[in-house]
Amino acid sequence: MKAAVIESVGRAVVTEVPDPTPGPRDVVVEVAACGLCGTDLHILQGEFAPKLPIVPGHEFAGEVVGVGSQVTEVALGDQVAVDPSLYCYECRYCRTGHNNLCERWAAIGVTTAGGAAQYAVAPVANCVKLPEHVRTQDAALVEPLSCAVRGYDVLRSRLGAHVLIYGSGTMGLMMLELAKRTGAASVDMVDLNPARLETARKLGVSASAATPDELDRPQGWDLVIDATGNAAAIQDGLGRVAKAGTFLQFGVADYATRVEIDPYRIYNQEITITGSMAVLHSYERAAELFANGVLDPDVFISDRLPLEQYPQALEQFAAGVGRKIVVVP
Amino acid sequence: MKAAVIESVGRAVVTEVPDPTPGPRDVVVEVAACGLCGTDLHILQGEFAPKLPIVPGHEFAGEVVGVGSQVTEVALGDQVAVDPSLYCYECRYCRTGHNNLCERWAAIGVTTAGGAAQYAVAPVANCVKLPEHVRTQDAALVEPLSCAVRGYDVLRSRLGAHVLIYGSGTMGLMMLELAKRTGAASVDMVDLNPARLETARKLGVSASAATPDELDRPQGWDLVIDATGNAAAIQDGLGRVAKAGTFLQFGVADYATRVEIDPYRIYNQEITITGSMAVLHSYERAAELFANGVLDPDVFISDRLPLEQYPQALEQFAAGVGRKIVVVP
Amino acid sequence: MKAAVIESVGRAVVTEVPDPTPGPRDVVVEVAACGLCGTDLHILQGEFAPKLPIVPGHEFAGEVVGVGSQVTEVALGDQVAVDPSLYCYECRYCRTGHNNLCERWAAIGVTTAGGAAQYAVAPVANCVKLPEHVRTQDAALVEPLSCAVRGYDVLRSRLGAHVLIYGSGTMGLMMLELAKRTGAASVDMVDLNPARLETARKLGVSASAATPDELDRPQGWDLVIDATGNAAAIQDGLGRVAKAGTFLQFGVADYATRVEIDPYRIYNQEITITGSMAVLHSYERAAELFANGVLDPDVFISDRLPLEQYPQALEQFAAGVGRKIVVVP
Amino acid sequence: MKAAVIESVGRAVVTEVPDPTPGPRDVVVEVAACGLCGTDLHILQGEFAPKLPIVPGHEFAGEVVGVGSQVTEVALGDQVAVDPSLYCYECRYCRTGHNNLCERWAAIGVTTAGGAAQYAVAPVANCVKLPEHVRTQDAALVEPLSCAVRGYDVLRSRLGAHVLIYGSGTMGLMMLELAKRTGAASVDMVDLNPARLETARKLGVSASAATPDELDRPQGWDLVIDATGNAAAIQDGLGRVAKAGTFLQFGVADYATRVEIDPYRIYNQEITITGSMAVLHSYERAAELFANGVLDPDVFISDRLPLEQYPQALEQFAAGVGRKIVVVP
Ligand SMILES: NC(=O)c1ccc[n+]([C@@H]2O[C@H](COP(=O)([O-])OP(=O)(O)OC[C@H]3O[C@@H](n4cnc5c(N)ncnc54)[C@H](OP(=O)(O)O)[C@@H]3O)[C@@H](O)[C@H]2O)c1
Ligand SMILES: NC(=O)c1ccc[n+]([C@@H]2O[C@H](COP(=O)([O-])OP(=O)(O)OC[C@H]3O[C@@H](n4cnc5c(N)ncnc54)[C@H](OP(=O)(O)O)[C@@H]3O)[C@@H](O)[C@H]2O)c1
Ligand SMILES: NC(=O)c1ccc[n+]([C@@H]2O[C@H](COP(=O)([O-])OP(=O)(O)OC[C@H]3O[C@@H](n4cnc5c(N)ncnc54)[C@H](OP(=O)(O)O)[C@@H]3O)[C@@H](O)[C@H]2O)c1
Ligand SMILES: NC(=O)c1ccc[n+]([C@@H]2O[C@H](COP(=O)([O-])OP(=O)(O)OC[C@H]3O[C@@H](n4cnc5c(N)ncnc54)[C@H](OP(=O)(O)O)[C@@H]3O)[C@@H](O)[C@H]2O)c1
Ligand SMILES: [Zn+2]
Ligand SMILES: [Zn+2]
Ligand SMILES: [Zn+2]
Ligand SMILES: [Zn+2]
Repeated sequence: MKAAVIESVGRAVVTEVPDPTPGPRDVVVEVAACGLCGTDLHILQGEFAPKLPIVPGHEFAGEVVGVGSQVTEVALGDQVAVDPSLYCYECRYCRTGHNNLCERWAAIGVTTAGGAAQYAVAPVANCVKLPEHVRTQDAALVEPLSCAVRGYDVLRSRLGAHVLIYGSGTMGLMMLELAKRTGAASVDMVDLNPARLETARKLGVSASAATPDELDRPQGWDLVIDATGNAAAIQDGLGRVAKAGTFLQFGVADYATRVEIDPYRIYNQEITITGSMAVLHSYERAAELFANGVLDPDVFISDRLPLEQYPQALEQFAAGVGRKIVVVP
Repeated sequence: MKAAVIESVGRAVVTEVPDPTPGPRDVVVEVAACGLCGTDLHILQGEFAPKLPIVPGHEFAGEVVGVGSQVTEVALGDQVAVDPSLYCYECRYCRTGHNNLCERWAAIGVTTAGGAAQYAVAPVANCVKLPEHVRTQDAALVEPLSCAVRGYDVLRSRLGAHVLIYGSGTMGLMMLELAKRTGAASVDMVDLNPARLETARKLGVSASAATPDELDRPQGWDLVIDATGNAAAIQDGLGRVAKAGTFLQFGVADYATRVEIDPYRIYNQEITITGSMAVLHSYERAAELFANGVLDPDVFISDRLPLEQYPQALEQFAAGVGRKIVVVP
Repeated sequence: MKAAVIESVGRAVVTEVPDPTPGPRDVVVEVAACGLCGTDLHILQGEFAPKLPIVPGHEFAGEVVGVGSQVTEVALGDQVAVDPSLYCYECRYCRTGHNNLCERWAAIGVTTAGGAAQYAVAPVANCVKLPEHVRTQDAALVEPLSCAVRGYDVLRSRLGAHVLIYGSGTMGLMMLELAKRTGAASVDMVDLNPARLETARKLGVSASAATPDELDRPQGWDLVIDATGNAAAIQDGLGRVAKAGTFLQFGVADYATRVEIDPYRIYNQEITITGSMAVLHSYERAAELFANGVLDPDVFISDRLPLEQYPQALEQFAAGVGRKIVVVP
Repeated sequence: MKAAVIESVGRAVVTEVPDPTPGPRDVVVEVAACGLCGTDLHILQGEFAPKLPIVPGHEFAGEVVGVGSQVTEVALGDQVAVDPSLYCYECRYCRTGHNNLCERWAAIGVTTAGGAAQYAVAPVANCVKLPEHVRTQDAALVEPLSCAVRGYDVLRSRLGAHVLIYGSGTMGLMMLELAKRTGAASVDMVDLNPARLETARKLGVSASAATPDELDRPQGWDLVIDATGNAAAIQDGLGRVAKAGTFLQFGVADYATRVEIDPYRIYNQEITITGSMAVLHSYERAAELFANGVLDPDVFISDRLPLEQYPQALEQFAAGVGRKIVVVP
């Protein structure tokens, strides 16, 4: 089959590789589309993946075209979205329900061959059936959505919160859509790039600007979410949290990034700073929310490129052009 | 001024009463509209209100036309919605943050003169300013909405829940609107009265029926909400909760109502049954959500009668005809 | 090896069975002691276990005497307590972190050969190493303790609660010990059997009686825990919950038991009723708490019988004589 | 009566002032003892108190010797501990249950005359009756304990946590006592001052050292609590939090203190940083826990000086000698 392959650091190609064969509890999925994200760039830079070459791609959905000998839950022809997470279920974090912090964390598209290919293999437990009305290509969005759902699980926000989101990329916009669905009284968004904020306005943001200084909320926001990973945004955002409010570190900062906090204020205003990492108990719920129309795929997917152009897709993503880019085998 | 008065058990009239005078931290509100609810019927039956006669009405909004000597927070001409709750701040429940369970619970329209009148008086702290775009009459809906918000505060539901609501009256429909805004993956509704379900469908319910038997969800619902107070509905609903799910007793049952639970199932499926009572820390948030359009007043308010017809309004409400009925002075 | 075997409904024997052989990620444990509980009686009555004969016993600890080919986490000679739970990690409940509600729930001693034997086999992930100062026999108490820990995880109680526990058997007494360690301001206990309450008094209960009527707390208790499974106790306990309080169904009632609740009170006093089922993310923590002396084994283990007397041990347990009975191979 | 008075910045005296007279819902308390804390030093430095002179003292208990005309809850001769907090009940924080963040925060001993005097006046709602077995002098400890209880309310910790506390002063030691009562599996403590750690060891700390480097816990601690306010301690502590763990800013840092956080780690390990400020819904519970012996007053109160020596007591406190110092009128 045809597949994208990260062959070595800095080198991505599309080439022929052997078709995957399923284990007894595995499913072979004919990929309809596979999304790209920051993790793929990290792999290209020689991080995250324990060894190269690897077929990347952990955001994908497709049709079941093969099943292992002990699979009964899905059948040939089913449309499925695939949770890429592979937990050990044995380490201290798995044993206490924090599987996303698994000591032996593994994932389809990172530690095993992924979805940037014609076919991909996945444990049946990771395959979530999609209702017929969902366009399978679009369901590549379920994985990033399931990260956003985890973010709101951490926040446990109540009805009526005032929310400020930094970064109007794919993830910031998903946080926006979910803010509305977790009862926000208002959702404001900041991004340095005015073009990005257009989409936010299209999706019904309450207010948007290049900086919160332009927004009229001196008492701050109950929830401030970083969806940039950018040090300046994080530093600014920490200062915008209202009394008794919460800052969510959702963006992935560089390892070396450091920002300052003010311990007196943390104490005196009972401010909380917390983080959310990948997917935890949230994939199926994201799939259901997606099937129920929580996202408009035509807004979220800005580019659909043929699998052959995987290297170019990666370049475009690295250049920060567009929103979610998917490759279509 | 003109006011509705519950004179004695079973007897409501509209008559002239002295204009109210504000204390130093009080506000006089010219009532734009005042809603009716079950509490008013209880008062008519000689319950809840410690003494008669009383001017009823605890769901109201209007314009500030007088302020006490020490009021600075609102000014003449401001439009305000009024939280009727009057807590003692001294009892063990107030001192632990459960003001809605206050041992000396009191409320405008129950223990002191209410909003079914041309003017009403309220502590300034209970007056929430409304933005200009809100039609003040409609803001009579803020109080019931703030009860619904309390319900979801108790539930603390996560994104992706499947919700079943019993009762498609004013409160059930508010629970529906908030279910969508607390991230429900689906919201189903049952009501014995098919006419009532039409509104539910208009508001975008996922499925509706006379009984959950007609709905296809053998594994049950994550959240089941009673918004009827009816014994049969409660009994049925308790059996519809999914494993690890929650039943919310929001409807006000008769004192004598008893329903059965199955302790083995509570244990074995880790089912939770809980309740939500009136307003707690939720009035301002309800006002903001209302101002942001969480409810369509023209759907929720079915009848706007002149204050003179308060007795007839009460009769119509008792007969269960329509949704929210408001009187307009 | 020698093992207790439930051969058929109502028939338990001690006999010779083949020694167990570990799979690649399994461990063979030489059992130091194995506790008996209600589950074993259910198995004897033909319930819970999918097929007979079965070697029972899910509360055990012992020494590692064999390891599978891929085991590195424990070594021969290690003392371990064994979590009997075997989850599928694939069903909707496992995938959302409710493994104790697993649709394919399985357990050592219920669906596979258990610890009432000279040797037992367990996945290495289920084996928790014990520090040297722990007497391995005593660590048969870790499993029931891990159920009690799950109970308090469900309760999430705050410092200063007033707690009432029904049933002064092994589990009620564990709930007592943990009430003290979850910040209870007071812990009262009721049991019909005055002899049982002596142990409660020895462990420092605040007050104890045959019925809460004898205890002076008209406002009720913040937390009421049923640790009897008895219908009369549950019914009585539901009425003892204070405003804003919680009732925990910890005892395992008969399937047919039904008790009555008062929906007006659930609503008006914001009462919560909830349940806790077996072990969830709590086994390791129970082992640590146990190692740190949270329980006095000599109080909790009333009888240590030789494995040969397993049938008699079961009879004594069924007769309700003593507290935790363990068999020692 | 005799009272300590902060007359002007830097100047504390003991002098005669008029006896206090109670309002209708107030109580006059003959002070048994009044504790000193950092707030008193801030007042001396011209901070916190809106105007000088002021009678300081917000940690006190005593006997009821006078009651206002409308007081029925306490009687002459009752022993009471006094919650110093005076909330407005009107601001946005009070109205949402965050009274400790009140915009018009006021307190006995800060904004009105306090307990470093022969008599003090307090609203009856702030007076908590003590059982007879409590030595009233010792109950000056209830106020700081109620801050510690608030800290654990914020933490909502589960059974089995590993806890690390920085600072073995009065507050750190209270956090230690409460860690044990909130189910900690272990509680370690660090302090630069070896003499301070002796008390920690006396109270049963699991391990203690000058720095966590000496403690063997490479995976970090589930809960890390700063009870120093010291920048170096906070900075060190933030790096000691285990995956999925929480850091509590309990110590009051200088306004200018800044420490660094690592956003990648917050995200990747789902770390939470939060704060707890003074007393919220926790005073009565602290009083009950205190009455039940949660603290040994003879360990916690290191010095009992006569009221006449208030200025010297303040100096000793500023010098960091001893634990809780109380003055006895
Ligand atoms: N927590 C999780 O589980 C999880 C899951 C997925 C992704 N993530 C992370 O979430 C972040 C967002 O992902 P994405 O795919 O949406 O990325 P993206 O498309 O690159 O969007 C980030 C946006 O933030 C803007 N931005 C950068 N610096 C800013 C600043 N100082 N102030 C305001 N806006 C700023 C960028 O503007 P320009 O276009 O001008 O640069 C861009 O529009 C990334 O860090 C990603 O790694 C986290
Ligand atoms: N918790 C709180 O804070 C709070 C606040 C406000 C109101 N409430 C309570 O909430 C409940 C609903 O209030 P509402 O104003 O919406 O009342 P409502 O307009 O009377 O609506 C109740 C609806 O439930 C339906 N119903 C009755 N029995 C039923 C059954 N067995 N199965 C299905 N549907 C059934 C009724 O149908 P019919 O028209 O055929 O009777 C009606 O449509 C009341 O009990 C009210 O007291 C509680
Ligand atoms: N939720 C879980 O995960 C879990 C885990 C383990 C066990 N359990 C359940 O927890 C319950 C207790 O277990 P156990 O081992 O402690 O049982 P146990 O030793 O039989 O203790 C139960 C105690 O309750 C007393 N009792 C019975 N009816 C009572 C009543 N109406 N009022 C007051 N006391 C009454 C019994 O007295 P007599 O001796 O006079 O009968 C006995 O002392 C059982 O139902 C068990 O199945 C639950
Ligand atoms: N959050 C609240 O509601 C609340 C309430 C009351 C108090 N507080 C705050 O809690 C903190 C503790 O109060 P306290 O009365 O216990 O104060 P304390 O008696 O001064 O105790 C603080 C202890 O921390 C030690 N320490 C200082 N720097 C350290 C470092 N880098 N590493 C380790 N230990 C260090 C001190 O040692 P030395 O003796 O050598 O200096 C001292 O033993 C204060 O900041 C206080 O303002 C907060
Ligand atoms: Zn793991
Ligand atoms: Zn009250
Ligand atoms: Zn399962
Ligand atoms: Zn306030």
